[in-house]
Amino acid sequence: MEIGILGTGMVGQNIGAKLFWLGHNVMIGTRDVSKTMARTDPDMYGNPPFSEWIKQNSKIKMGSFAEAAAHGELIINATTGLVSMEALKLVGKENLDGKILMDIANPLDFSKGTPPFLSICNTDSLGEQIQRAFPKVRVVKTLNTVNAMVMVNPKKLKGADHSIFLSGNDAGAKCTVKELLKSMGWKDIIDLGDITTARGTEMILPIWIRLYGVFESPVFNVKVVR
Amino acid sequence: MEIGILGTGMVGQNIGAKLFWLGHNVMIGTRDVSKTMARTDPDMYGNPPFSEWIKQNSKIKMGSFAEAAAHGELIINATTGLVSMEALKLVGKENLDGKILMDIANPLDFSKGTPPFLSICNTDSLGEQIQRAFPKVRVVKTLNTVNAMVMVNPKKLKGADHSIFLSGNDAGAKCTVKELLKSMGWKDIIDLGDITTARGTEMILPIWIRLYGVFESPVFNVKVVR
Repeated sequence: MEIGILGTGMVGQNIGAKLFWLGHNVMIGTRDVSKTMARTDPDMYGNPPFSEWIKQNSKIKMGSFAEAAAHGELIINATTGLVSMEALKLVGKENLDGKILMDIANPLDFSKGTPPFLSICNTDSLGEQIQRAFPKVRVVKTLNTVNAMVMVNPKKLKGADHSIFLSGNDAGAKCTVKELLKSMGWKDIIDLGDITTARGTEMILPIWIRLYGVFESPVFNVKVVR
Repeated sequence: MEIGILGTGMVGQNIGAKLFWLGHNVMIGTRDVSKTMARTDPDMYGNPPFSEWIKQNSKIKMGSFAEAAAHGELIINATTGLVSMEALKLVGKENLDGKILMDIANPLDFSKGTPPFLSICNTDSLGEQIQRAFPKVRVVKTLNTVNAMVMVNPKKLKGADHSIFLSGNDAGAKCTVKELLKSMGWKDIIDLGDITTARGTEMILPIWIRLYGVFESPVFNVKVVR
């Protein structure tokens, strides 16, 4: 599949590399290509800069947000939740309408320190905001409840015996995303319902962050036992 | 142990019966004893009225909120989250100070229909509100992420191979509550940290409610896989 990824951070890199490895034609997009390529410092976790990563993954294309979205039949929002709406506006409706948009971002606000709070929650969600702003886009919220390493390699953890969630209004789009998740190794995929159910998965983040603190590792997930 | 339970609904009844069965001396409290005893209709789920239940559990004492709290060394807040603060004010500091208060309520607001929203969340929680209002009470938030049936019988579900959380500022109180949970059959008890971590567990409710819809059953829980 032609896949466009918005966001060059750890999440964009991990999912981009995984989907390329699975045989997809991947383009990764950023706000300002020359600025992103000019960065030479490691990120806040000590990972090498994007320019190093793209050199090592040279078959993954790179472009602006709009170019990456234009490239994709399926687009992945891997931007930081607080700037997702802005990034999607830069992409433009013309590059999004009719396509599947996998929204894997979370609206975490660190502006008042740690732990962060959610900039949207309870009676709304980032997933819903995106769907309202782009009514012709087939938004599917998923993968936002796990760290990038678990996301692309669920089998690493208890042989993938843990759960991932789907929220979205378009049954066909959810079906396509479900198949993509299966190809990535996911087994227990729970369709929660329409895009308003994204509130529930985004609101897992506050306990997720506390569990990260308790375990001193982001490599965990939940299994819904029933 | 002398245990006082605030709230005569399904949660209060289930945990009261379980703790009595485990050998504790239980008193269950309500706002207005005569009003509660006078109800003859089944509840919204078709369960018999409280007066029937207390007849069948005649060794469990009954009293006002204040009497139940005065009776307990450990007090359980099993009231509806929206009225918990009011119920605790009726109890009074004199019946609470220095004691352990297990807060198992959730601030779910159904006033705008289903699904409910949380009346407090994100930058605050019911657990924190209670702790702030009663600074000398040793508040431990727990059990609010599961249905009453799972709460009192975790082994029913996958032999109790699923998780329950603790939040609270008082290490000794959390230790006592942990032992009580173990006696109820809980195995994977995760101490999240201080009372502010109650935000995380209360914010699980929105996905919990959607999962209830998907499974058409409240008998499920999450296992934190790590």
